[in-house]
Amino acid sequence: MSTRKPYQLVSREWKSSDTVFEVNNVKIGLDLLMIAGPCAVENKEQIFTITEFLSKHNIKFLRGGAYKPRTSPYSFQGLKTEGLQLMRDAADKYGMSVVSEIMSSDKIEEFEEYVDIIQVGTRNMQNYPLLRTLGKSKKPILLKRGMSSTIEEWLLAAEYIVSGGNEKVILCERGIRTFENSTRNTVDISAIPLVKMLSHLPVILDPSQGTGVRDLIKPISQAAIAAGADGLIIEVHNQPEEALSDGDQSLFFDQFHHMLQPLNQLAHFQNRQFDYEKAAIEAGY
Amino acid sequence: MSTRKPYQLVSREWKSSDTVFEVNNVKIGLDLLMIAGPCAVENKEQIFTITEFLSKHNIKFLRGGAYKPRTSPYSFQGLKTEGLQLMRDAADKYGMSVVSEIMSSDKIEEFEEYVDIIQVGTRNMQNYPLLRTLGKSKKPILLKRGMSSTIEEWLLAAEYIVSGGNEKVILCERGIRTFENSTRNTVDISAIPLVKMLSHLPVILDPSQGTGVRDLIKPISQAAIAAGADGLIIEVHNQPEEALSDGDQSLFFDQFHHMLQPLNQLAHFQNRQFDYEKAAIEAGY
Amino acid sequence: MSTRKPYQLVSREWKSSDTVFEVNNVKIGLDLLMIAGPCAVENKEQIFTITEFLSKHNIKFLRGGAYKPRTSPYSFQGLKTEGLQLMRDAADKYGMSVVSEIMSSDKIEEFEEYVDIIQVGTRNMQNYPLLRTLGKSKKPILLKRGMSSTIEEWLLAAEYIVSGGNEKVILCERGIRTFENSTRNTVDISAIPLVKMLSHLPVILDPSQGTGVRDLIKPISQAAIAAGADGLIIEVHNQPEEALSDGDQSLFFDQFHHMLQPLNQLAHFQNRQFDYEKAAIEAGY
Amino acid sequence: MSTRKPYQLVSREWKSSDTVFEVNNVKIGLDLLMIAGPCAVENKEQIFTITEFLSKHNIKFLRGGAYKPRTSPYSFQGLKTEGLQLMRDAADKYGMSVVSEIMSSDKIEEFEEYVDIIQVGTRNMQNYPLLRTLGKSKKPILLKRGMSSTIEEWLLAAEYIVSGGNEKVILCERGIRTFENSTRNTVDISAIPLVKMLSHLPVILDPSQGTGVRDLIKPISQAAIAAGADGLIIEVHNQPEEALSDGDQSLFFDQFHHMLQPLNQLAHFQNRQFDYEKAAIEAGY
Repeated sequence: MSTRKPYQLVSREWKSSDTVFEVNNVKIGLDLLMIAGPCAVENKEQIFTITEFLSKHNIKFLRGGAYKPRTSPYSFQGLKTEGLQLMRDAADKYGMSVVSEIMSSDKIEEFEEYVDIIQVGTRNMQNYPLLRTLGKSKKPILLKRGMSSTIEEWLLAAEYIVSGGNEKVILCERGIRTFENSTRNTVDISAIPLVKMLSHLPVILDPSQGTGVRDLIKPISQAAIAAGADGLIIEVHNQPEEALSDGDQSLFFDQFHHMLQPLNQLAHFQNRQFDYEKAAIEAGY
Repeated sequence: MSTRKPYQLVSREWKSSDTVFEVNNVKIGLDLLMIAGPCAVENKEQIFTITEFLSKHNIKFLRGGAYKPRTSPYSFQGLKTEGLQLMRDAADKYGMSVVSEIMSSDKIEEFEEYVDIIQVGTRNMQNYPLLRTLGKSKKPILLKRGMSSTIEEWLLAAEYIVSGGNEKVILCERGIRTFENSTRNTVDISAIPLVKMLSHLPVILDPSQGTGVRDLIKPISQAAIAAGADGLIIEVHNQPEEALSDGDQSLFFDQFHHMLQPLNQLAHFQNRQFDYEKAAIEAGY
Repeated sequence: MSTRKPYQLVSREWKSSDTVFEVNNVKIGLDLLMIAGPCAVENKEQIFTITEFLSKHNIKFLRGGAYKPRTSPYSFQGLKTEGLQLMRDAADKYGMSVVSEIMSSDKIEEFEEYVDIIQVGTRNMQNYPLLRTLGKSKKPILLKRGMSSTIEEWLLAAEYIVSGGNEKVILCERGIRTFENSTRNTVDISAIPLVKMLSHLPVILDPSQGTGVRDLIKPISQAAIAAGADGLIIEVHNQPEEALSDGDQSLFFDQFHHMLQPLNQLAHFQNRQFDYEKAAIEAGY
Repeated sequence: MSTRKPYQLVSREWKSSDTVFEVNNVKIGLDLLMIAGPCAVENKEQIFTITEFLSKHNIKFLRGGAYKPRTSPYSFQGLKTEGLQLMRDAADKYGMSVVSEIMSSDKIEEFEEYVDIIQVGTRNMQNYPLLRTLGKSKKPILLKRGMSSTIEEWLLAAEYIVSGGNEKVILCERGIRTFENSTRNTVDISAIPLVKMLSHLPVILDPSQGTGVRDLIKPISQAAIAAGADGLIIEVHNQPEEALSDGDQSLFFDQFHHMLQPLNQLAHFQNRQFDYEKAAIEAGY
């Protein structure tokens, strides 16, 4: 294999058609993906309340952190295995799939047991031993962009996974670190159409991490779909003011509810459909 | 006047309703604004060809640089007064308005004679003597964000103009400077809804400067409208490959033509209308 | 002239030997330059007190802002002409030279009358009409680096001045804007030896703007001399706690006094001498 | 324990005196530390040649990568266990200590066997499972700053290790990611004195990663010592043009040789001594 180009298997030159794979009857890369849930699993009541709410909106993918990469060793570090089990139970009850972040290779068996899509967080985008482990997994991988990674470095991180044998990679823009401090990160909206040109992999946006400001999540989610994103991952909480982490960027239930209809319209503008709308139609709503 | 808050007259607290003002029958701040044209005025044939093309699409605002702030003293510096005159003649012939960049206070009379909206470029956002001069002008000012300015600094630059007596300020996001080098700048899409929350002034996007990549202009323009922008300023050229400056980011006529219809759809999504569509409807097209 | 290379007249290829020019018996580019004084001239007593203090340490160059580029229109904007006159009077009384910032071309005559070295601030590094005006002046120009300018853009800004006919340009690194927020700016220490390799012009550091933290000024000044800088420009105030601008980064008299001896040692390490030490030796101290 | 302050055990408030610990008769934190060697161990001849050269200069700490975190999966990934063994053999022969980078917790036993100071690279600064593992090790840890980490985040990463029980942490500034592209990273020279004020831990600089430019390593190393750094880690190679990684930033033997004497002078300026000079004096050279 030539090593001339920095990345290969993930490139449009290697494969011109969009990569599409199915999870929970959703054709990721074709249907627009909606992943939602709390920053962290906190307790049984919280995660079941949120999951029930989401399922009423036909959301198919539940996010939630069980192992939390926290800047301080004194912050809440997540419920770990118990958190994964709670998510699994809640998701199973409501017919949903689980998306959660892995932080080290030695947890891979646990994640393969409980989780449907394994997330690599921004701090681990260049954790190459972890990427190699995930390259051998059968599970789809949601690969967040490093907070100061170039698009080339991000695609090369995906190349680590794909060259290991796992082609089911979802790229996730989540904002980059810049001098601007009125938002938590700066959403690099151009990265979405640019990565779609360079790669055949699906690309979604995390507007919650990207902005860190609850009131910006709706307009920035809209921007992402209008720019061609393949989906969104959004933080929603039943009591954002009391969340153990990232409460300021978590949507209230009501806010989440009211952004779905405009997002559907924008999906139609792109001649696409969100998975939850499709599920609703198929279910005869 | 209290100096507690960093900015005042431009804030939503000072004035809760959107600022709207009329130029060439367009209600800027209410109708979505479309400004288009070449990076620089190069010669009579070029500017008349482009202006005629734009007028056929009912575009009402012609952009074009006559005084060009070039990084190198050896690059084309613009046609200066002659460039302004050519734009004026072309715009008058086709019923359009002229938008052009001023670089120093001593040209203010010339700009007031030839230009309808006076642009302050990214390098001059903190040229305070110039901002004070423009605060005394009757002309609307298009104030680009400094390439490394925070949103607060940008609003304070607008405050210089408004506190001088000129309330007709259009803010223009044009990308900020970051580590990412696959685009010329990083479009700070969050700045659009954030500035709309903080200020009553209209906010538009320049996707040409913002991305520096021709093929990103359509998706990023769509993102801007979906995020709530009040308009766009776009570089279009009859022969981008031969442009004297910024050819790589200038649209071909055909590309510009094909992006208007999707933009109209997105305007309707926002319950708004682009000025060119409104003009077409009023003209009975 | 070939336009192949981005800059020419300022390059080492054009002129291999260091540019040296004399102001107030100091050979700038050969002797290490020390410029000191308040951020802004505030009143007669303040500027005379500071000037007297500096002259006792044989400092030859008095800095002070008369026209201040302030982020907010409501902040103290400087004493303007009166400020320049006060600095001139104080400097004349104590045998010193005046360094002050110009903000627009229309003040050039005033600056040529009162000021010995004309400073271009970071916000005006790409104010090309101003650079062209200064290219026709006989006065030396202190050109600060733009807060988000690359080294290439900075050298091209110098090229504007030199190509206009004025070869007496002093480059001044003053920190760049990054994500790090524990200092006001990030001093790009590598810029000093890199610019010395690329250009024959003298390069100094402003550790006051560069760090924004009083206690970092001594170690960072030392770092600059150890890295090969041709001098320093430092903010000193008789009452930093009551300064009308930038008090947090202004040195107390005592702090300034105690940093001179270590700086002399570092100058000797570089086989060079600070101008104030040379003046002291020549005066027989 | 209060969680009010973001970091505690690493702060000056917690412990006012400098942390000093001994490795290979060098009192790290008191004596200035010099770590040198190739980017990566490539083969036996290379590592023995370089080690012999370093030992002739009384260098006590040999750096070299055995597990390399490479941006591309197709780049040379290091000799792994064999690389560690080769370094150990070479270091033992010449009385030196081994410094090498660990990438995942599952290699901890191997590193504890072969390595004297375990390095955490910039990409793993926030790999919290790895930091927790190292908190339980008896080996000193060299913790590089993340390429886009704030000083607070860096100190919190150190807090993970120290709160786990391992107080022997050496902080290493290695440049941050900014818009400037003429150097590989931007050395944040202010971080050195600032971290010395905030923390009792030793702080060193990596000018090789920090600049990426061979000719900048000497002046920037000098700047670091003049700013108060506790040491340096420098890439040296017997054949930089043929190095398998980072050849452009590796010093030639001759360059390394000629920078030691000036660094000694700067150490004396700080009333300190480099470990290699002290070793030479004790050995009676």
